[in-house]
Amino acid sequence: MSDEDSDAHEDTHHEPHRETFSHDPIGHARVDAGMSVGELADQYGHAGVGAADLHEAVAVTEAMFDDDVTVFFSLAGAMVPTGMRRIVSDLIRDGYIDVLVTTGANLTHDSIEAIGGKHHHGEVTAEGKTEREHDETLREEGVDRIYNVYLPQEYFATFESHLREEVFPVLDDECQQDGSVSIERLTRELGRANAAVNERDDVDEDPGLAAAAYESDVPIYCPAIQDSVLGLQAWMYGQTTSLSVDALADMTDITDAAFDADEAGAFVVGGGVPKNFTLQTMLVTPRAYDYAVQLTMDPEQTGGLSGATLDEARSWGKLEPDAENVSVYGDATITLPLVVAAARERLEGTE
Amino acid sequence: MSDEDSDAHEDTHHEPHRETFSHDPIGHARVDAGMSVGELADQYGHAGVGAADLHEAVAVTEAMFDDDVTVFFSLAGAMVPTGMRRIVSDLIRDGYIDVLVTTGANLTHDSIEAIGGKHHHGEVTAEGKTEREHDETLREEGVDRIYNVYLPQEYFATFESHLREEVFPVLDDECQQDGSVSIERLTRELGRANAAVNERDDVDEDPGLAAAAYESDVPIYCPAIQDSVLGLQAWMYGQTTSLSVDALADMTDITDAAFDADEAGAFVVGGGVPKNFTLQTMLVTPRAYDYAVQLTMDPEQTGGLSGATLDEARSWGKLEPDAENVSVYGDATITLPLVVAAARERLEGTE
Amino acid sequence: MSDEDSDAHEDTHHEPHRETFSHDPIGHARVDAGMSVGELADQYGHAGVGAADLHEAVAVTEAMFDDDVTVFFSLAGAMVPTGMRRIVSDLIRDGYIDVLVTTGANLTHDSIEAIGGKHHHGEVTAEGKTEREHDETLREEGVDRIYNVYLPQEYFATFESHLREEVFPVLDDECQQDGSVSIERLTRELGRANAAVNERDDVDEDPGLAAAAYESDVPIYCPAIQDSVLGLQAWMYGQTTSLSVDALADMTDITDAAFDADEAGAFVVGGGVPKNFTLQTMLVTPRAYDYAVQLTMDPEQTGGLSGATLDEARSWGKLEPDAENVSVYGDATITLPLVVAAARERLEGTE
Amino acid sequence: MSDEDSDAHEDTHHEPHRETFSHDPIGHARVDAGMSVGELADQYGHAGVGAADLHEAVAVTEAMFDDDVTVFFSLAGAMVPTGMRRIVSDLIRDGYIDVLVTTGANLTHDSIEAIGGKHHHGEVTAEGKTEREHDETLREEGVDRIYNVYLPQEYFATFESHLREEVFPVLDDECQQDGSVSIERLTRELGRANAAVNERDDVDEDPGLAAAAYESDVPIYCPAIQDSVLGLQAWMYGQTTSLSVDALADMTDITDAAFDADEAGAFVVGGGVPKNFTLQTMLVTPRAYDYAVQLTMDPEQTGGLSGATLDEARSWGKLEPDAENVSVYGDATITLPLVVAAARERLEGTE
Repeated sequence: MSDEDSDAHEDTHHEPHRETFSHDPIGHARVDAGMSVGELADQYGHAGVGAADLHEAVAVTEAMFDDDVTVFFSLAGAMVPTGMRRIVSDLIRDGYIDVLVTTGANLTHDSIEAIGGKHHHGEVTAEGKTEREHDETLREEGVDRIYNVYLPQEYFATFESHLREEVFPVLDDECQQDGSVSIERLTRELGRANAAVNERDDVDEDPGLAAAAYESDVPIYCPAIQDSVLGLQAWMYGQTTSLSVDALADMTDITDAAFDADEAGAFVVGGGVPKNFTLQTMLVTPRAYDYAVQLTMDPEQTGGLSGATLDEARSWGKLEPDAENVSVYGDATITLPLVVAAARERLEGTE
Repeated sequence: MSDEDSDAHEDTHHEPHRETFSHDPIGHARVDAGMSVGELADQYGHAGVGAADLHEAVAVTEAMFDDDVTVFFSLAGAMVPTGMRRIVSDLIRDGYIDVLVTTGANLTHDSIEAIGGKHHHGEVTAEGKTEREHDETLREEGVDRIYNVYLPQEYFATFESHLREEVFPVLDDECQQDGSVSIERLTRELGRANAAVNERDDVDEDPGLAAAAYESDVPIYCPAIQDSVLGLQAWMYGQTTSLSVDALADMTDITDAAFDADEAGAFVVGGGVPKNFTLQTMLVTPRAYDYAVQLTMDPEQTGGLSGATLDEARSWGKLEPDAENVSVYGDATITLPLVVAAARERLEGTE
Repeated sequence: MSDEDSDAHEDTHHEPHRETFSHDPIGHARVDAGMSVGELADQYGHAGVGAADLHEAVAVTEAMFDDDVTVFFSLAGAMVPTGMRRIVSDLIRDGYIDVLVTTGANLTHDSIEAIGGKHHHGEVTAEGKTEREHDETLREEGVDRIYNVYLPQEYFATFESHLREEVFPVLDDECQQDGSVSIERLTRELGRANAAVNERDDVDEDPGLAAAAYESDVPIYCPAIQDSVLGLQAWMYGQTTSLSVDALADMTDITDAAFDADEAGAFVVGGGVPKNFTLQTMLVTPRAYDYAVQLTMDPEQTGGLSGATLDEARSWGKLEPDAENVSVYGDATITLPLVVAAARERLEGTE
Repeated sequence: MSDEDSDAHEDTHHEPHRETFSHDPIGHARVDAGMSVGELADQYGHAGVGAADLHEAVAVTEAMFDDDVTVFFSLAGAMVPTGMRRIVSDLIRDGYIDVLVTTGANLTHDSIEAIGGKHHHGEVTAEGKTEREHDETLREEGVDRIYNVYLPQEYFATFESHLREEVFPVLDDECQQDGSVSIERLTRELGRANAAVNERDDVDEDPGLAAAAYESDVPIYCPAIQDSVLGLQAWMYGQTTSLSVDALADMTDITDAAFDADEAGAFVVGGGVPKNFTLQTMLVTPRAYDYAVQLTMDPEQTGGLSGATLDEARSWGKLEPDAENVSVYGDATITLPLVVAAARERLEGTE
């Protein structure tokens, strides 16, 4: 209630206690045909609940994407199969991401696309079947299902050839010399090979996460690499060669990256191992994250790390006491494009 | 995998069975600085999971907002306190909504803003307090909390005066004649009074839902009106006057609206009584909804109506067998502005 | 860490600050073959997160089910179709519930069972169909689906006959005299008729919620009665008779019940109108709830009332500042039987 | 039901079409003071939605816990800090679990308790603070928070000593010979050391997961070991010693366990890497799981693996086409004790 309004009343006995109540009024969001995503994000700022969180996430992302901030980007969940690959590879190429932490599954699916494979729009249940019968049929047809996304299994064979011909041999050589390679060394070689296939064949206009990271000198950490087809293939190749992967070697480099940062930011998509590994890096450095954005669909009430608030990370010393941090609860395939488009509009203009 | 791609391989034994596998590839969303919300929605269409649902929701909304479709708009949840009021009142004024079904709470908060009150950005826990202590303090300070939104309680006193001076007396007169009024008659009178306050005072640039509906001849149905401060006030006023509200009277008019529609669409925000009342209207007509969009955060697994899929409504005959319908799971304060902005861009252009 | 433990360390610089850290250790739950539900609830008390909440809910329920506490029981969601009817009707018969607030849907389904109808175990998708095709088939077969529960539609016809023959005529008579009846009057007559059918026919060993409430003099409030088949039938009957239902009349009685209570407790299953109506009753009395238990699957983050914490209700004056209150997040078909069985074991012993 | 329909039936107009409708009626759960957990589980079987799933989970668990079934138990989430440790260690000791797949965090917290540390009941926000301020205070006081559980940080120092004195040296020796150790070798040595501390000191009546697994010859696989304090400590120790951990070595043994099983069952608590690693083991064997139970709070709609249905796993060949499988949605600290107690009652009787 503005001063003008209150003047309009004779009897002011219902006025709020102004000395203690100094909150901004909610202004109500407006939308217009043709508005930009950045304008939409501004409108979210007038509203409450999740819209307010999303508006704040855009602001923290804008601050985090500054040149002086080292950005650790954590990508869990089925983000590559569900179509979020290009948004992240563009962020890598455009210099917004300094360290990528992700899953073996995302790298597997990223590489399958880099060598010409495709994920497809499918259905949870379809073609005259229960979910169970549907999945039995897909199994017979050689199609793997990820919620409503299909992947023909033959692409795994193509991926196997790619790994055995283009990626693993050089790592095998290094293991014969050094005993083992780090996981980051493996993901870097994967990126090189994925980029090379694309140069050679123009298979894909976007060679993907691993290729973009290789070409931009961005390290990819993948703590649970064995928990993926990429890891299974490395294990099988290692049965008859010297290929061996060191589980712990990467921790020196990621810790150094955190140690050397002027300021550090964590952009966390989904939870799982990538989230925890990104945050725990600060446990062995004297510093902590100055900025943190989290996009998650897990509620805090589970007590699990994936849904845990970023405030909780403060008690562990993973976030600076005065860090800017915000969690947006919702499907990341909706919120990630929204936050990135709006933050980029603020940073790059609309031209 | 295109023909060109497969030519690149000698050994084609990994090709998918083309006669059974004809799904569209996932193309990966792209975002650019300055893109419009409609362009973002197009990009969601390349992706899977929730993004694909959101893209489809824009398409169904575009089809539903056609002139020939009677649109029933169901608004549950704390959508007015959390800043979604203007988006809906603009849709009413611009002719996209034909029937509004909502809660007494949304009408209460809508009217409080129409007469000069404000909701405010607050905190779930704040000012050196646990959530419990914080709420005790707010209680002492006369502030009501709705998650992270604050409402000073004095506005309820202003609202009471408004109802007793501008709204209830004329209804009391009608009850002296007819015994009772319908709920829709009460909400219509509320809209008239809210609009009149705004004309007189220019208190608010947007007189809100009830005023917009009154001015656009859109009926507002509010089945559980007694479950709100608006209902409490009506009850208290009725203790000393003839004001009496008929619980069932509106069902004739809403059923007629469904019966008379060439095509019918349901745009459902949140669940609760508004969702069920909107859908059950079709139980007593020979027809059903041709289009339905649902924005909800409740998972289907609860078995509750609020999270129930729209497919389930088909078994009850509430949706036509071939209806276009889609559910978007996520915070409606994020998804409602997004879907409406994108649908309006498609319908009105970007100019 | 006990004193004995700390003595074991020379260097004590890692000891916690004992003056500020006085929390109970987590003791780890144990389970044994043959343990009682009350023993299981005790074990939950050793654990954290949701288990701790459930343990506390049992304690608050035990306190609330004391003779001196007036218990308002709020039952939303599809609790009758999903098999929770007997647990609640037993609580009514055994004197634990003083006021029941529920939905028209629960009363409709309760009455269908009272007159011999049955809900059935079904499937979300089944019989060689997608969810959509499945629901089209069910529609053709005359079966309504509630998640994984089926209801043959012919029971609605039986219910219609029951209402028109046993329930509505006497209410019609009263309306010819008094103009209208209250909703509680309607639910009471429904309970009488349901009980009478069961005496006559022995149709069902448990005549259900409405019958138990009628026989135990427990009022049933159903604010959104028109949002149900029960309401639709009342409306249709009223088209050709004098039957008219007053939307506001019950508020006097429920407010009096709150006003007259020595102590008051709210046991809230699900959210929706029953939750809000139960809590808002305290807005017009000088007192508030002393005990409150909430079983919900809605996360707080939605900002909606259904998932709102009970602490939030304190800011509105719906709960006493020192009320004992707890929310359990999870499927109420699992948590309701658990909490009630454990609380009854504490109160009644294991005999 | 239209007039035409009812005319078609002479007397049986209310009967369901029996040739197509043969579903079991829902019988309504009953609860009694003093009933056993197994009796409660039987009552869930009468109900629908989640209660029916829980009832089925007890049946599948009973079948899976047969001697002829090799049980892979996947334990993600903060299950040890939140008090679920004893239930799992009892299952190991009593021979119900053949392979354990878990996180480094659970092993870290398990070991901290084994050597005398304790987790404590705490608060999400407490002691006159916002969540953020609260976490800053906890940081200053040296207390780590996991939702509503507290852990004094000094226990990490005790854990470090334990690892450096009792666990790592012998592994260092082996690495000097063999170059590296497997993760399972590390967790086995941890179990030995945890068991030894308890024999020596009687620190804890239950020496925990790792100790029970060591003593029962149950291997523990921990794919993302570096994503934990246990992994951080191993890395730091390896900076000055020969300790090196092979990321891939365990895949041979877990695959052999799957290969050699007569029948295989997966009991999956939470999602994350343990779930995926447990399921993917079947990708490289000609067989798949015959039984699977999943306790999760993640909704399917996220598209993530953690919430993915077990039906989906069928399309990947991770479950046999005719496997018995069920997912229970809810807080695992509530559902795990319930399912285990009921299954053990069925298997062991109530004595």
